[in-house]
Amino acid sequence: MNSIGIHYIWDVHHISSSLISVVDPVKTLLDSIIASTQLTIEGENFKQFSPVGVTGLYLLSESHISIHTWPEHGYAAIDLFSCIPVDPSSIQNVITDILGDDVIISEQVIQRGMALTMDKGVL
Amino acid sequence: MNSIGIHYIWDVHHISSSLISVVDPVKTLLDSIIASTQLTIEGENFKQFSPVGVTGLYLLSESHISIHTWPEHGYAAIDLFSCIPVDPSSIQNVITDILGDDVIISEQVIQRGMALTMDKGVL
Repeated sequence: MNSIGIHYIWDVHHISSSLISVVDPVKTLLDSIIASTQLTIEGENFKQFSPVGVTGLYLLSESHISIHTWPEHGYAAIDLFSCIPVDPSSIQNVITDILGDDVIISEQVIQRGMALTMDKGVL
Repeated sequence: MNSIGIHYIWDVHHISSSLISVVDPVKTLLDSIIASTQLTIEGENFKQFSPVGVTGLYLLSESHISIHTWPEHGYAAIDLFSCIPVDPSSIQNVITDILGDDVIISEQVIQRGMALTMDKGVL
């Protein structure tokens, strides 16, 4: 079965809090991820939470990327939903290049919009 | 183990294409979902794709909600990432109220940012 989009979910732990506390370095991280792909940014929205923590959203031609950071937990949640292929290992390399080799990245990949071949009653 | 956020993933199939082709009804759908919760909108970004199809992103005080629509497939991908509890069955009811009882909703729930109690080498 074919999917319509691929959704990459990265849970990144053990991040130095100073790297994810405010918007600028978090935006740089997303920019670097996007620059490593063929994806195109169409719109953006970033918010600084108080006292620390950031949400960043890029609307892409190919869907979206999001990040939410909890510096107090050394944790960032990154999601990339794309309707074109990307290389997740390259993106993990970008993440470790910027956040350091000590971070722990947990990756999940979800095929979104799988073609439905079953009757409604079977689901 | 405690999670930092809860990520609800809804893949919605068998949608009448006219309901998800342009921004206005898609925005109404997201607005209705948010109105059924205690979540707060902080920022928004919507894009009309040509000839049809929409991406919508709301940055929330509690994280984000996104929607991507493919009217040609009768399909919409809806994600809600929240750091406070929501009632997913109420949200499914909002979706069927607006998109019709014939849609098929597939739900996944992912606990994001689970506390790491293992050594790095174990992961």
